[in-house]
Amino acid sequence: MDEFALIREVVRHLADRAQGPWVAVGPGDDAAVMRQTQGHDAVASIDTLIADVHFPASAPAFYIGYRALMVSLSDLAAMAAQPRYVLVALTLPTADVSWVGELAQGMAAAARDCDTYICGGNFARGQLSITVSVHGEVPTDKAVTRAGARVGDQLFVSGPLGLAAACVRQQNFQLRDQLSALQKAYFMPQARFDLLAVLRANAHAAIDISDGLLADAGHLAQASEVALNINSADLQLTEGVTLTDALKGGDDYQLLAIADKPLAGMVSIGQVIEGSGVSLDGVEQQPDGYNHFVA
Amino acid sequence: MDEFALIREVVRHLADRAQGPWVAVGPGDDAAVMRQTQGHDAVASIDTLIADVHFPASAPAFYIGYRALMVSLSDLAAMAAQPRYVLVALTLPTADVSWVGELAQGMAAAARDCDTYICGGNFARGQLSITVSVHGEVPTDKAVTRAGARVGDQLFVSGPLGLAAACVRQQNFQLRDQLSALQKAYFMPQARFDLLAVLRANAHAAIDISDGLLADAGHLAQASEVALNINSADLQLTEGVTLTDALKGGDDYQLLAIADKPLAGMVSIGQVIEGSGVSLDGVEQQPDGYNHFVA
Repeated sequence: MDEFALIREVVRHLADRAQGPWVAVGPGDDAAVMRQTQGHDAVASIDTLIADVHFPASAPAFYIGYRALMVSLSDLAAMAAQPRYVLVALTLPTADVSWVGELAQGMAAAARDCDTYICGGNFARGQLSITVSVHGEVPTDKAVTRAGARVGDQLFVSGPLGLAAACVRQQNFQLRDQLSALQKAYFMPQARFDLLAVLRANAHAAIDISDGLLADAGHLAQASEVALNINSADLQLTEGVTLTDALKGGDDYQLLAIADKPLAGMVSIGQVIEGSGVSLDGVEQQPDGYNHFVA
Repeated sequence: MDEFALIREVVRHLADRAQGPWVAVGPGDDAAVMRQTQGHDAVASIDTLIADVHFPASAPAFYIGYRALMVSLSDLAAMAAQPRYVLVALTLPTADVSWVGELAQGMAAAARDCDTYICGGNFARGQLSITVSVHGEVPTDKAVTRAGARVGDQLFVSGPLGLAAACVRQQNFQLRDQLSALQKAYFMPQARFDLLAVLRANAHAAIDISDGLLADAGHLAQASEVALNINSADLQLTEGVTLTDALKGGDDYQLLAIADKPLAGMVSIGQVIEGSGVSLDGVEQQPDGYNHFVA
């Protein structure tokens, strides 16, 4: 099995996700070519997931692929951008064709769920890791950034938090045909593209919760030069989820958004206040989310 | 030193290359935002370089960064696309701030030489590797692919080949203030964006020579469903370069293009003929370029 055979196998498993209406040239050439939408900006982000750091290497490849794509696409949702295309760079210790085929199927399923395409990639030999470069579009100047929160605004979240963190805490990785609610949150997070219209219309700022609620609220507060107060009573704790899971677990990929009026489909959990940093029920918090290089 | 401090340090060294006229939101948010050009397609590719496979880890970080960006950008030149922006995902065993700063300076120099910007990235801890996602634009439907060579066309190359391969073969990695010609070819390859206008006007097909002349001619022949014959006498062998370096070394990142009339700035080295595969002076060749998963 050589590299080119591996590429053919991946493209076969990507099926309808390697080519689409706005993909003029898909996988196989020096680069892919995509149509751009007039009056739109490009929105782009890149993420690397390392085996046994960012995902359990022993999990089914389908879910590793599904999750890798979704957690990367979530950054586009946080900017209120519609996904357009994805590039994937895989580093593999060996050319395990059936594993890679399953991974590609999971990525294709996630791409299908977000109406996007995987139109390019790269293979290299090394420590197992997945790098995903995601690309979307937003009407010119309508991207929602982390800056823009104003004192007096409200803080909203797109759904219950901490489910995926509870799954990881419990090392709840034995999968059956039907995933449990916690497993579904971890292995099949949903990038919240259903909220794009709401965000574009009314959000002053947004971020996806990838490092944990406190940490990401801290990033947003810093970029907006304000402080945020979270009301613990407003956090919905579902079964099996602790307050710590909800405050410090980032793996759900829900969105945190700021607005001065209700955001349909999102729940208010706090307020924008003067100062800096993040407080919980008025008590200042130490934002300690995930940081790759802190011992 | 934590991840966020590392990001700040990189952005400082990227200097004028983290933001530019078409970059609306640079590094630091969930995603970067770039203006798109009306009437243009997006062109995109991703490459991973693994330490001591794709670059000598002991080389100065500046050159590792310069080369990583250029070899990835070269795929855009091969499509006749103007570079617009780059995303970089670094995987590092430790947070060596001064090494990363030097790497960023090298990447910024390459970005400056190609009039492009590095507007997003990611850090993860692991085996040293660099993944570069490159993004350009080309007038709608004007991308030059590998398909399109027609029997009777001529085969052109953008410059002398094999210099970088000779540098690697000699393990000629002791760098002084002034790089030798072979070292310059390896450590500071130049993506051939100077040829975009020529390619867009007259090329039927193109590819960048990254796997070696024979191998990449083979890829182009296969995509175009033709055969290519190369005249060995037309290959300029500069000092220290063997015919094998020129035929099988891919590290120069020159372009191979196909046209039915002369391409200004390029040299004719052969013809498009009926059949499949690649021949040298009429003798069929075994295309054996670089393939990551062949033992």
